[in-house]
Formats: sequence, C-alpha cells, structure tokens
Amino acid sequence: MIRASVIGASGYVGQELIRLLHNHPQVEIGSITSTSAVGERYDKSYGNYKSIYEKPFEKQDIQKIAEESDVVFLALPHGVASHMITEEILSKTKVIDMGADYRLKDVDIYEQWYHTKHLSPDLIEKSIYGLCEIKKDEIKEYSLVANPGCYTTCSILTLAPLMTQSAFDTDSIVIDAKSGITGAGRSLDVSTHYTECNESIKAYKVAAHRHTPEIEEQLGAVAGKQIRLIFTPHLTPMNRGILATCYIKLKEDLTEEKIREFYLEYYKDSEFVRILSEGNLPETRWVKGSNYCDIGLKLDKRTNTLVAIGAIDNLMKGAAGQGVQNMNIIFGINENTGLEDIPIFPV
Amino acid sequence: MIRASVIGASGYVGQELIRLLHNHPQVEIGSITSTSAVGERYDKSYGNYKSIYEKPFEKQDIQKIAEESDVVFLALPHGVASHMITEEILSKTKVIDMGADYRLKDVDIYEQWYHTKHLSPDLIEKSIYGLCEIKKDEIKEYSLVANPGCYTTCSILTLAPLMTQSAFDTDSIVIDAKSGITGAGRSLDVSTHYTECNESIKAYKVAAHRHTPEIEEQLGAVAGKQIRLIFTPHLTPMNRGILATCYIKLKEDLTEEKIREFYLEYYKDSEFVRILSEGNLPETRWVKGSNYCDIGLKLDKRTNTLVAIGAIDNLMKGAAGQGVQNMNIIFGINENTGLEDIPIFPV
Amino acid sequence: MIRASVIGASGYVGQELIRLLHNHPQVEIGSITSTSAVGERYDKSYGNYKSIYEKPFEKQDIQKIAEESDVVFLALPHGVASHMITEEILSKTKVIDMGADYRLKDVDIYEQWYHTKHLSPDLIEKSIYGLCEIKKDEIKEYSLVANPGCYTTCSILTLAPLMTQSAFDTDSIVIDAKSGITGAGRSLDVSTHYTECNESIKAYKVAAHRHTPEIEEQLGAVAGKQIRLIFTPHLTPMNRGILATCYIKLKEDLTEEKIREFYLEYYKDSEFVRILSEGNLPETRWVKGSNYCDIGLKLDKRTNTLVAIGAIDNLMKGAAGQGVQNMNIIFGINENTGLEDIPIFPV
Amino acid sequence: MIRASVIGASGYVGQELIRLLHNHPQVEIGSITSTSAVGERYDKSYGNYKSIYEKPFEKQDIQKIAEESDVVFLALPHGVASHMITEEILSKTKVIDMGADYRLKDVDIYEQWYHTKHLSPDLIEKSIYGLCEIKKDEIKEYSLVANPGCYTTCSILTLAPLMTQSAFDTDSIVIDAKSGITGAGRSLDVSTHYTECNESIKAYKVAAHRHTPEIEEQLGAVAGKQIRLIFTPHLTPMNRGILATCYIKLKEDLTEEKIREFYLEYYKDSEFVRILSEGNLPETRWVKGSNYCDIGLKLDKRTNTLVAIGAIDNLMKGAAGQGVQNMNIIFGINENTGLEDIPIFPV
Repeated sequence: MIRASVIGASGYVGQELIRLLHNHPQVEIGSITSTSAVGERYDKSYGNYKSIYEKPFEKQDIQKIAEESDVVFLALPHGVASHMITEEILSKTKVIDMGADYRLKDVDIYEQWYHTKHLSPDLIEKSIYGLCEIKKDEIKEYSLVANPGCYTTCSILTLAPLMTQSAFDTDSIVIDAKSGITGAGRSLDVSTHYTECNESIKAYKVAAHRHTPEIEEQLGAVAGKQIRLIFTPHLTPMNRGILATCYIKLKEDLTEEKIREFYLEYYKDSEFVRILSEGNLPETRWVKGSNYCDIGLKLDKRTNTLVAIGAIDNLMKGAAGQGVQNMNIIFGINENTGLEDIPIFPV
Repeated sequence: MIRASVIGASGYVGQELIRLLHNHPQVEIGSITSTSAVGERYDKSYGNYKSIYEKPFEKQDIQKIAEESDVVFLALPHGVASHMITEEILSKTKVIDMGADYRLKDVDIYEQWYHTKHLSPDLIEKSIYGLCEIKKDEIKEYSLVANPGCYTTCSILTLAPLMTQSAFDTDSIVIDAKSGITGAGRSLDVSTHYTECNESIKAYKVAAHRHTPEIEEQLGAVAGKQIRLIFTPHLTPMNRGILATCYIKLKEDLTEEKIREFYLEYYKDSEFVRILSEGNLPETRWVKGSNYCDIGLKLDKRTNTLVAIGAIDNLMKGAAGQGVQNMNIIFGINENTGLEDIPIFPV
Repeated sequence: MIRASVIGASGYVGQELIRLLHNHPQVEIGSITSTSAVGERYDKSYGNYKSIYEKPFEKQDIQKIAEESDVVFLALPHGVASHMITEEILSKTKVIDMGADYRLKDVDIYEQWYHTKHLSPDLIEKSIYGLCEIKKDEIKEYSLVANPGCYTTCSILTLAPLMTQSAFDTDSIVIDAKSGITGAGRSLDVSTHYTECNESIKAYKVAAHRHTPEIEEQLGAVAGKQIRLIFTPHLTPMNRGILATCYIKLKEDLTEEKIREFYLEYYKDSEFVRILSEGNLPETRWVKGSNYCDIGLKLDKRTNTLVAIGAIDNLMKGAAGQGVQNMNIIFGINENTGLEDIPIFPV
Repeated sequence: MIRASVIGASGYVGQELIRLLHNHPQVEIGSITSTSAVGERYDKSYGNYKSIYEKPFEKQDIQKIAEESDVVFLALPHGVASHMITEEILSKTKVIDMGADYRLKDVDIYEQWYHTKHLSPDLIEKSIYGLCEIKKDEIKEYSLVANPGCYTTCSILTLAPLMTQSAFDTDSIVIDAKSGITGAGRSLDVSTHYTECNESIKAYKVAAHRHTPEIEEQLGAVAGKQIRLIFTPHLTPMNRGILATCYIKLKEDLTEEKIREFYLEYYKDSEFVRILSEGNLPETRWVKGSNYCDIGLKLDKRTNTLVAIGAIDNLMKGAAGQGVQNMNIIFGINENTGLEDIPIFPV
C-alpha cells in the first residue's frame, strides 16, 4: 500500500484527491491538513464524506508528514509550496505539487507572471512537469512533480501533436477556453457568488492569465522553438469542465483525415486521450468525473484554419486525476489504477 | 462472475445500470437492448462510454437473454414488463424490474392509478418489493424483484421508522418532494426543454402522482394499518437528486433526541442510510452519484410537528444503485459491492 | 413627480428598487446611499446601469434625505431601521421599510425571533403592514409602511382567502416554500457560493425562519384568531422566484370549484393576483420580473386536503415591486404604475 | 398608433416581439399567427401573458394582415418568408423579417449555405440589412427589412470599427462565440433537453454555421473588400445571452487607448452600444433583457492581437429588440422608444 498524505485538503482539489485516494485500491490515506480547520472532522467541510471518511485535519507539519508518507500531495496557493519543500523533504518522500511553483522552468517568467519571488529556484531543475501523456517516461525518475494547471493540460493535449508538424503556423495560435466555476476554488468572492455568475458568461484575465506561459513553455518544448500565443479564459455557469477551442492556421495543404492520424499516432499509448472521429466534437459532459481528455478536430478549408477542441474535467485530468496518474507512474503501478470509472452522466 | 443483462438500456436508468455494472468487480455485462436503436453502438447514445464500452444494442429477445444471463434488469415503461415476464423466464434467470408493474401488491390500485390492465397479476404475489433496507431478508428468496420508485424510496426511508410508533399521527402525513430533471427521463417534452424548466420551480401531478399508492402501501405494511397521505412532487432545475420534506404530527410528547434514536436503531444495519446529527439537514449535493439516503430531523414544538427530510440521488438509490444493491443481495455478495464510491462533489 | 430616495441601495432589493423607480413615469430618484461604497458610481456595483444611471452613493444622512424626499425606501438589515426612524422623520417624509423592524405588531415576538431589542417600539403602532392586497385602504393613511417579507407575501396571499372559511382546519397548515438564491442577498457566504448551491436543493432554518411569526400574525388577523403553522423554506438553484406549496385540511365537504370561487371573489379587485383555472398550477418562470402572484389550487379528496400553491418573484412582489406598489397607493396614483410590464421569459 | 402584427408568434422571438410591442407606448398589436395553434389563446403557450394578453392565434392570412397592419414582423423558419412576401404585400405594409431570407445580398451564397432555392431573389435588392447602428440612415427608405441574426449582430458590432483601419489584419479574424440556449428556439431536440445541455459546454457547427457568410458580407461592406473569417458558435448552459470573443492581429503599432477611441467615435450616435472603459469586460448578465451591446477591448502586446469582446441579449438586440428598433426608425419615432428599460438583474 502506498501511504499518501494531502497538505491543503480543504479546497476542491484537495477534496477530489481525498476522494480518489480513498477509492484507490493500493493507497491508504495518511495525514490530511488545513491551516484553518485543524482538529475539525473532514465530513464537516464536505458532507459527502459522512460515515466514510471522518478523520480530522491535522497541523501542517511537513517534516513529520514527509517521514510518515510515501507521497505527499500539496494543494496550496502559489508561493507556499516553494517555501515548504526542501531537498531534505524530497529525500524522504515523493512530492506531487498541485500548485504553480515548479511548473515553469524559467524562474524569471514565473516571477514576472506571479509577481512574487521564487523561494527555491534550485529545486525547479529537480522537478518534472507532470503532464503524463507527454512526460510519462521521465516522471518516474523524479521526486518532485509539478502537476500541470487545468487550462494548461487541456490546451497542451489539444495542440501538442501539431507542434512538430511544419504545416502549422505556430505564430497563429488562439486558445479560447471555457471553465466551470470549480476552477475558481472554494474561497468566497463576489464573482463566484451564485447569483453573480449563474446564467452569465464572461471572459476574464484576458492576455494576463498565468496558465499562458505554462502552455507556451511546454508547447515550445515539443516544438523545439519559442511559442507565443493568445489565451483567453472564460467563466461558464456550470460546476465542472474545461473546453479549449484552439485555432491554428495551416501553411500547407493537409486533409482533416491526415491531421486526425497525427493525433491517433501521437496518443496511441495514452488511454486517457480519446480522439473523436470525423464529425464529432467534445462536450464537457462526456468527461465529467473522469480522467479523460476528449479531442475533436475540424478543418476549415475556407480560411485554412484547424479548429482543435479539447475537453477535460478540470478537477480530474485538470488536477486531482492527473495527480493520481502521476502517483501511479511514480510507484510503477498501472497508470489508470483508481481512475477507470466510467464518467457519470447526467450530473 | 454474475452475468447481467439490461433490457431497455437507452434511457437514463438503463445507462446508470450499465455504468454501475461495468464498474462492478463481480459482474460481466451480457446483452443490452433497446427497441429503437438495435445495432447502434452504445457510445453513440452516451459519449461518456467511448473507448470503454462500445457494444451495440441487441434485439429485445427476452427468451434468449434469460437463458444466457444470471440476472436481467428491465428498464421499461410501465405495462411492458408485465407483458414480457412469465414463470418460465423466472425459472431461468433472476429479474429486477426497474419499472412499476410489480410494485403494488393490490392489482386494483395498480389499474386505477396506471389506467391500464395488469397483464400478469399472478406474478405480483411471486415478486418482492425491493426496498433493500426494509425487505433485506426476504429479497434473496425471490426471482422477481420490483425495484422501488425514486420518490418512493426517499419517502419511505424517511418515514418508515415512525410507522410503528404510536406517538405519531399517521393521518397527518404530508410529503413535499423535489426532484431533479433526470427523474423525467430522456424522452423529449416541452416541460423538460432546457429553457422551459431552467431557472424555475413548479409542482406537478398534485394529488395524482403514481408513487403515492406505492408509498402508502409500503408504509401501511410497516405500520400494520392503512395509510393515506398527501404527496406533492416538484420539478427542480438541477440534473439529479430528490429531497423529500415530510411532515407528521405528534400525538404525544417526545424529544427530537428520542426520535433520532428510533431512526438510528431502525437503520443500525443499513449502511446506506445516514442519520444526520442534531442541527444538520440533508442536501442533495452530498448524496449525488452515490447510493446513500441522508435523513435529517427537526421537531417543531410550537406546532408539535416532526419535519423529517430525506435526500437521495434519484438515479442511484432511487433507481440503478438500488437495483445493483438488490442484485448483490440476491447473489449473496456484500450489499455494497460496486456501490462504495464516495459521492462526487461539486458536480 | 415623486422624489424617492433609497437608503441601502447596494443590495439586491435596493437595486431592484432603483430599476423600478428609474423606469417609473412619475418618479425622480433623489439620493441613494450605502455605508460601504460612499462616492462610488452605481454602475460600478451593477454593470447593467452603465450609461443609464451612474450617480454615486451618498452618505446615509437620513435627516437631509428625509427633508429632500417625498418618500424614502429603507433596504437595511433588521435592527437598523428601528434605530434610524423617528417621529420627526415621519413628519417630513413617507418611509417604506423593506426590512423586518415594523412588520410584527407584537414587539415581544419580534424580540424573541430576531434575538435583538426593538429600538422604537412606539412606532410599530404608527406603521402599517404593507401587504397591498389585504391592507389597500389603510395604507394611504400611514407615513411608515412595513413592506412584507418575500416568503410572507407569497404564503399569505396563497392562504388568506381560506382564513375566514370555517370549512378549513387552521391548525393543520403546512407551508413548504422554495426560494431562488437572490433571497439570500448579495453578501458572501459559503452556502451561496456558486459551486456549493448549484445543482442541489436543501431545506434550511426549519421551524426557525423569521418569516413564520409574520405569516402567523397576518393570517391570524384575517382569521380573527391565533394561527400556528409550520413553515419550511428551501434554497433552490435558480436566481429568482418563490413557490409556496401550502397544505390545509378540510373539515367540511367543499368542491374545488367552490374554493376557487372564494379566491376569485377575495381577489376580485387585486390585479396582481392571478387565480389559475382548474388543472393549472403556478410556475415561478411565469411571474419572473413582474409583480404578479399566481395561485393554483388542487383539492385532494382522498385525504381531504387542499393544496394551494402560490408563486411570486421574490425581488418584485416579494420586495421592491410591492414597495413601489405601496408608494403608488400612498401617493394616490394607479397601483400598477411602473409595474405593468409583461413578465420576461425565458430568462 | 402603429398597428403591428406578428406572423409566427409562437416561438421565442415571436414572443419577445409581443412582449415589447405590448409594452410599446405607440404600438397596438394587430394579428398574431401560428400555423400550429390557430384559435388557441396566447397565454396557453406562454403563462406569463395571463390576464395581460390573451388573444388567440389567427390563421396566417398574409394578404389580410398586410392590409390591416402598418408593419408585419415575420418570425419564421428560413425559406418561408421568401415564399410569402411579394411586391404587392410590400406596397401595403412594412415588413420586418426576423429570419434569414433577405439577409444575404448574394443569392448564391444564400443557396449554398442554406441548401435551398431562394424564392424571391428579386426582392433581395429591395430589402435593407437592418443592423441599425450601421444602416440607420438607409433603413427608413425601405419597406422590407432583413433583421440580422443574433451571432451576427454581436460579431459585427464588435468588429466593425476596425474594418476601415489599415492597422488590422482582416485575414486573421477569429470569432469564438457563446450563446445561451434560447438561441436554439423552442422546438424540441435532444441537444436542448435539459439534462443533455445543462452543466456542459460544447462547440457546434464548427466552420459551418450560417451566420458566417452574413458576418463576412457585412464586415466586407464596411471594409470595402472581401472578408473571410472563422466563426465558432458554442452552446452555453444559460437561457439568454451571447458573448463574442473576437481576435484580430495588428499589422502596425497602436495603443489600446487609441483603439478605444475608434470605437467611441464610431458609435458616438449609437445609444445602444456601450464601450467599456479600460480594464472592464462585458458579461452577458449586464445586458440581459435589454437592447444593449456592451463591448470591451484588450490589446495583447505580446502577440500583437486585439481581443474585442461583445455581449448582447440574443432575443433582444439579437432579435426582437432590434426588430422594434428597426420599426421605430422606419416610423420616424425615437429609436429607443419601448426599449429604454434598465436591464433586469440578477435574472
């Protein structure tokens, strides 16, 4: 059994981790922590856990938890993990950081987009960007995994297969993404007050969202060159799900069929990526509660533009599901263990 | 392995059964049928099944399916099952009927509320009403299980513990129930067109809903006397969930604490019923996707009325979840096998 | 022109007042205030007002505002109005209090349910309970109107016609009410965070909601005797609307048709009450954005229970709409001025 | 008084027209028709009209209605209006066609995108494309107005001011639009069944939506050259509203401030267009129920891309509101008559 602990278990990502870890056949949950609710039973925060998992939150004693755990998940605001993790801790346990601190390899870009000083830049090189479908073979070598962002996961998976194809104009990329409101977390804010976001859609943080450099850095790594793109997130009145509608111009003639083949080939060993057949487009409802990323393609010959659309569950493949997938890879068990359930519908 | 087939797998209840049966560690799915979609792949109807379960619908050949299956689930409109099931079929396989045809023991009441002639009234006596918490010991003796209705399950579980207590006035019962829109099924109707039911609530079939006699008959059986009650269903703008707010007058003085003890005692062996502690009330979000029924209690001393509130997922404990629970009981395996997952939230 | 000011214009009720007053052909808006946003433009709080009404919030100087206004609306938390209003102010202006401070005639009951001392009990007698359909002739005599609560308005209008009929057992009343989430206001709380209340329904404040004594006092006044009833509010995932499903036992035989006649007669001069014909039941969508109260009736002969169901828009007939209706009555203009718009649908 | 009739009053656009025309101070409603509901009272289809407007649907006798009406609105499926309208009818009355038949000047493009033969191509030249902000001075000269599509109105208004600016690369335009579900109308379809579209977002008709050539033709007319662009509609789980997120590359250096000035200048006489100030972005909630189009701008210097975002209410500025605005212009009354109400919120 893998003993897994969760630092920061009171938010939605932490909770989704607890749910998956509890259901996981090869995991036992160690400690769960929260700075604000020490001693409080978990089912008080989340009524769904009643009679199932009622342990109290512990203090955030990272040293003790590292010693007692095989893996520690961090679900913390940015800037907190980089303050907490040290080489010593990494010598004792594996760390999967659900936050942003180790996602960007370029510390300058991190500091510029996050407006804060990085506190352990030396650890960045010792971490791996845990987008499983792209880094699968490397992940198991690392003790520190930077679990990708939700928009990022969806956008990268949707565009990566094109990055090595010279037919596509990588200067023309537009990503227009739509997220459910769990993406904004459990903290109270007027923008996520029910009657302020229900029955309305809006863009936010246009040209300023922090997942932008993460997408650029990773797609750039696949492409082998610098990528600059425009990314626009939208807040959509639904609990879960991300849909990323991606636009890229073609410089050469290609058929949609040929492009679909690139995708099928690229993801032939990735069971969580489902490439939809011609005429089918992803919908967030079909991936909800699951670790799948569905991708649909439509080539517009009039404008020579490929529209590639990806859909994920932001709390699953976009956060906790991928975290567990990373854990499975690290511990050498089947990648899909504890993640095989059919998506639940309608929900 | 139990070989389970589903007759009528194209609706929401059928689909939820497929999801649970596929995830169930001791089940293999046999045939699935639909009259309207023979030959069509399952993932065409339900995109969540892509890459997971892509078998086509078969013809509804009940004889053949009965021979090849250990258990057959029927998810059909009322009047269809009673036309299909015979003693011969029951000699070959177990049948769990998700519909209404065998729920009412009194065939006259069935014909009066359903405005149709019952086609196999002799089988009614050979069937068991599969409300697991109440009939657990009897279910395994039967080959034909009438799986209870969604409103019914929630209402009966919420009121049953009081029925044997002389302190309660069983002539005063009011059940005001609220259901999500999956309760209305997948068939198109203007009342369930998105823009006609979104952002609105209404009562429907007041004093005329067919779950009324089912609730009365079963509560009457517990009480040992005839029960007449008023039941009002409401359509609520959400996908899943039923909340039943039940009112009953007290004829004697009792404390809320004492009443809660009745419930805890009554359900002490029922792991899917969670009696909430003082001051806590059920919310449908905490049971969504699970087989739980949460029950909360509040005694109003001013009016000497007990308000007992139950919450279930209408497609789970209110349909497919309970169907699987019945199957588990019949085959002598742990009642909660395949049903243990933590409710998913927020979803 | 009537000069109308709004004290507490930053919440939903205040905003709905501004909308109605701005659209009203015989009103000019005087001052609007907020303690937290003095100097801030109104369209910063509410983007819908951009280019239309962009005045800043003023300080809450009640003396000055009273002098400059023909009528002052108070949209304040309970306990604040009773601290602010004096006889001197009432000698200068009319006051329509949207809050609870003057709704209950019995100050002991107020203090008991609101857990606070009433600061101007002497003014209670000088105020009128502004449920227009019931008090129309008296309202214009008063300078201080206590505008009724939202649940209260819906519940009283739905039950009042029965209170003088000896055929009904007033000890048997159950009111099961469902409200949209604007009823909880604009203040942030985890219970109204989008992802915590979306796609879920729950009861709250069972046997403890403060609208209970208000309903009892007013129905008791109509009945000419003390009324005790059980009232259960529910939070429903939608922005606006209240549906009150009311149950009352009959002691004598009456037809539904006869009961409907009581209602038609009782409300024959009330243009905002629409009594639905046989077989029709109210839905909150049909009254949204309007000042209507729709009432439907169903007599259940099996249990000798009348189910009377009312629907209103909680911010309109349940708050601001009725406030404007009260203003119209006070100033002797047509009751429906500024309130005649057809309900908007689908919205 | 203008006597206005509505052919096809049973759908959402027809209903919104009735609502606006009934509230309009200078209009009396003449005939309303529906092919499917002749003789049926309007409030049976739309419960909000009870006690307000209860006339029955008449037969669709266009000759008689043309004679008796000053203006006739057509809210019909494409292909029906072009079959119905003749020069003779236009000699008797003004016609405002809410459908697609006269929107495209190029009949070949119409026939290619609508897969049907145009039945009165000669009338196309005699009609005007009724996008009021752009064609205001011409509209009053015409008897036949082609009222623009919903996505079209939002997209054109959001991009038009840039079309005459050489700084923008008109080959780079991407329009990613999101619509509420009223956009799909009242006809039943599994894609708009509540539980199939609630809590999910998807793109549809990618590179194939019929509003594409309409946007291209009109933007091309402003630009004075052919425009080709990619347009992607999305179905969003909300009743009303369209948000169009538009992307266009800059070929020259411009500040965001300068670009905003273009917009302010371009729309200086257009009271229904609100250009948001720096840092503000449109949200559909702020325009709901109104005729406004809100436009926000963000220049991304990293990629030299302007993100211009527009928001409208699809049934108002995107259909019925603009229809009434066209009527006002034709009859020489104030453009905003009957359209001045403050947007209702939260709704």
